[in-house]
Amino acid sequence: MSTARIVVIGGTAAGPKAASRAKRLNEEAEVTLLQKAPELSMASCGYPYYVAGEVKGRDMLLATPAGVVRDPAFFAGAKGITAKVSTEVMAIDRKAKTVAWKRVDTGETGHLPYDKLIVCTGSRPKVPPLPGRELDGVTTLTSLEDADGLRALAASSKGGKAVIVGGGLIGIETCEALIEAGMDVTVVEALPQILSFLDPELALLVQKHATSKGAKIITGVGISAINGQDGKVSGVTLADGRELPCGLVVMAIGVAPNTALAKDAGLALGPTGGIVTDEYMRTSDPDIYAAGDCVEIKNRITNAPMLAPFGDLANLEGRVAGENAVLGDTATFPGTIGSGICKVFDFAAASSGLSERKAREAGFDVVTAINASPDKPGFMGAKPVVSKLIADAKTGRILGFACVGLGNVNRQAAEMAMAILGGLTVDDVAMADLPYAPPFSLAIDHSIATAHVLQNKMRGLMRGEPSTVVKSWLDNGNKPFLLDVRGQKEFDEMRLGLGEKLVPLGQLRKRLGEMPADKHAPIVTYCKVSMRGYETQRVLEANGYDNVTVMEGGLVAWPFQLEK
Amino acid sequence: MSTARIVVIGGTAAGPKAASRAKRLNEEAEVTLLQKAPELSMASCGYPYYVAGEVKGRDMLLATPAGVVRDPAFFAGAKGITAKVSTEVMAIDRKAKTVAWKRVDTGETGHLPYDKLIVCTGSRPKVPPLPGRELDGVTTLTSLEDADGLRALAASSKGGKAVIVGGGLIGIETCEALIEAGMDVTVVEALPQILSFLDPELALLVQKHATSKGAKIITGVGISAINGQDGKVSGVTLADGRELPCGLVVMAIGVAPNTALAKDAGLALGPTGGIVTDEYMRTSDPDIYAAGDCVEIKNRITNAPMLAPFGDLANLEGRVAGENAVLGDTATFPGTIGSGICKVFDFAAASSGLSERKAREAGFDVVTAINASPDKPGFMGAKPVVSKLIADAKTGRILGFACVGLGNVNRQAAEMAMAILGGLTVDDVAMADLPYAPPFSLAIDHSIATAHVLQNKMRGLMRGEPSTVVKSWLDNGNKPFLLDVRGQKEFDEMRLGLGEKLVPLGQLRKRLGEMPADKHAPIVTYCKVSMRGYETQRVLEANGYDNVTVMEGGLVAWPFQLEK
Repeated sequence: MSTARIVVIGGTAAGPKAASRAKRLNEEAEVTLLQKAPELSMASCGYPYYVAGEVKGRDMLLATPAGVVRDPAFFAGAKGITAKVSTEVMAIDRKAKTVAWKRVDTGETGHLPYDKLIVCTGSRPKVPPLPGRELDGVTTLTSLEDADGLRALAASSKGGKAVIVGGGLIGIETCEALIEAGMDVTVVEALPQILSFLDPELALLVQKHATSKGAKIITGVGISAINGQDGKVSGVTLADGRELPCGLVVMAIGVAPNTALAKDAGLALGPTGGIVTDEYMRTSDPDIYAAGDCVEIKNRITNAPMLAPFGDLANLEGRVAGENAVLGDTATFPGTIGSGICKVFDFAAASSGLSERKAREAGFDVVTAINASPDKPGFMGAKPVVSKLIADAKTGRILGFACVGLGNVNRQAAEMAMAILGGLTVDDVAMADLPYAPPFSLAIDHSIATAHVLQNKMRGLMRGEPSTVVKSWLDNGNKPFLLDVRGQKEFDEMRLGLGEKLVPLGQLRKRLGEMPADKHAPIVTYCKVSMRGYETQRVLEANGYDNVTVMEGGLVAWPFQLEK
Repeated sequence: MSTARIVVIGGTAAGPKAASRAKRLNEEAEVTLLQKAPELSMASCGYPYYVAGEVKGRDMLLATPAGVVRDPAFFAGAKGITAKVSTEVMAIDRKAKTVAWKRVDTGETGHLPYDKLIVCTGSRPKVPPLPGRELDGVTTLTSLEDADGLRALAASSKGGKAVIVGGGLIGIETCEALIEAGMDVTVVEALPQILSFLDPELALLVQKHATSKGAKIITGVGISAINGQDGKVSGVTLADGRELPCGLVVMAIGVAPNTALAKDAGLALGPTGGIVTDEYMRTSDPDIYAAGDCVEIKNRITNAPMLAPFGDLANLEGRVAGENAVLGDTATFPGTIGSGICKVFDFAAASSGLSERKAREAGFDVVTAINASPDKPGFMGAKPVVSKLIADAKTGRILGFACVGLGNVNRQAAEMAMAILGGLTVDDVAMADLPYAPPFSLAIDHSIATAHVLQNKMRGLMRGEPSTVVKSWLDNGNKPFLLDVRGQKEFDEMRLGLGEKLVPLGQLRKRLGEMPADKHAPIVTYCKVSMRGYETQRVLEANGYDNVTVMEGGLVAWPFQLEK
């Protein structure tokens, strides 16, 4: 091994991983990590839980599992890496193969030569050019400094009003954090729905849950101004003229890759604005690699470049870049399927692959199914989960899977991410052999049952629509015959309350006379989760009714009000 | 659709599923379900939790998620299926296409014609020909009747002694149930380890945990007799002469397929003793299908036939058999990879695919790695999990994965089952894109990190052995230089206590002089989980030490006593 000089710019996730991997694979290498912030290896995905007070100590976000804070002394001793904090890289000189750095605290400057450079400059929060964005009390949640500030502010503002601009992943996590900390929180999302990685059927369920926990959520309208008094924020004005008084505004409309250094050095940027890398995480300069939020990577389903600023991918990309910088392109990074999960109070919301909307945008002819079920047998204390499965209509290949609910979303999301990575089809998942015992899952695992629903739809054995479609029929005055096939007791506890007919499935075959006289009349059938709804469709169709639709996922997947 | 007469023998899992699927796909079909027991659709995998008292009501094991007990009236009304309970099938007349039945309660007999027959006769507990097996207080846990009896007995025997014969899945689940119910339990397993679906490294960790919860576990010695007084059990005698007094003996040495009916009817049985079926779940008679514990199915990794008496597979097989009985072989069942999971107090133990032992028996040239880690970041309240990954040495294809621990075994096991089903390699899993957020997983998911360890081993970057191998070296007097590289505080709290040297990783590069003078001397290095142990190996090898072994999984995967 040669005594290569490896310089890594950026010390949060991808950078430390790249530096560590490089040093482990070549103990002779001189590895230097340059970090603008005063801290290293911050667990930035943990900031919301730190703001909420759930994570007690700040050091816990910076420490190894053994409890050692990852500071320059740790990197020197345990890793053999020279880490310089509060050190900003000002420029990359590709000809001289040096980087120019400047101490943020002391102003000291210098140059550092490299044989291989790894750029991990991360991302920065997008802040729209809104009037008032400079006011005191307007912040983001992307740095540990932000987190420190928000934590202190939330702790001292119990009962105070906060507005979060943006209902994406960070916005919703921050909403929970501030409510947990005792604030009165309104999320304002300009798009028609929160959590745009989900299709609306599932996003509305998350919204319903967050609302039940006290969050106020406004969708479909943006912010036109942030208002203030004496330099301090006092409220926001919405695009429709409404005013929301508040003492805190968190901007959470997403992040953009930090590419100024790379761009100035002439490295190629891609159509998404991220640094272009090949499968080796090598940039357009063969001696410079890049990894983490600052790069664009390949979507493994569409093959299109995309930004995927997630901590898990940053680590994997860093591992590949670090290895290749010392071994010479022995490792490859295959890209992303866009897997994510987030906690929303006691709900979780997860997605892998493409949503229906994104799949259609990418040109796929798709089939979908929504399924609701308990996550394990009722006698084990089950909680509901609702999933949507998206597949290619021609091949049955699974393109996407999303899951939300109080139940074990984590298992479902992880196993289906692996199914997508394996290129499995709906038929494959329908006959999957997964670990089962009552404390852990249903005998027919929720995802397998979801595949059964889609399989039935693809074969024409079931015809269903999401609750949102049924709702749009009702809203448009095209009211079908609504047929609830649950038991009387279930009906008394909770129901649509929209003029539906109750005929318990067990009595259906004897009460066909109560169905519409016109066998072509539209009928929508459902139960709690629409398993009985599906059985009803089979019975009705066998009896000549030819316009029966199952409301997929039943009442559990109904994101609107229910009558109690 | 024709008005086919479908007869299903067996009403626990596969049978009701087959009957329901058949009726849903052909409302015209006359579907009859014949069940020997008085109950239908029993959630038999829930019996241990019913015995423990965790499942409150007996009806909960028999009810739909909506709380309706699945009795003949339910099957008639909701499913359109004629279900006859307490009705034993005595013979199948394949020529006449009838089954002869007899009421267990009234003695009434009759014949029922079929166009298609589905045999779901399940399994029965193996009971070895031990003296004393007829005594009062000797039972099994395979029927609801067994469960009722055991639950009553356990409730009235608090503090009483029980012996469980067999340390497999049911034995260990029953052990937990009886301890939860307040009994003093000893498990006796004739094999050298409990839970034979696990390799010994992980089985020993489960044993250590169960022992810490009060279970007494004896391995490597069988039972030679059950002793009694006045017709009631008073104890057991072990093969080595030891006597264990007890008032309850549970036989849990496994189950055998119920094939007498099939055999008498001349249906082909396979080498494992199960009914032979093709991929359509069709037996050697084209008008007879079979599903559930009574059949043998294909192992998807070895292609060998095997018995897989699991409730999840029974449901999938029943779904296929039910469909094909009415539609004519449109669905196929692909076989099993042998996925399983079980709860052991607050531990879980899971496995998919082949263990190392079974992979070697099947002729694979295998590579393996053991990895221990928290299941999520420390600041989120992490708990440890320990995994073993088994792959084909030539192709890197994953052959098996097992995971045990206090942490989220469920997610790891489910995602890796899907990885095996997808034919993924170690390299594929090493770069998997899984849903990540701190409440749910590590940034580098535990299974991905396990693949990293195996990848490093396969590329010669890491050389490791399981703790059991290191223990055998010590036991055989071949003591290596034991190098613990944790911090002093961690060491003070807990350590091997076998004469090891402590050199914290952070000091290692400066303290190389304290390593053995002979650079060929065997060194075993480890930390809490052996991540630092691996880094130590890299540093030592770079400094010329050529006989360094990482103890895989570190102290978390050490299944023997630790010094505190």
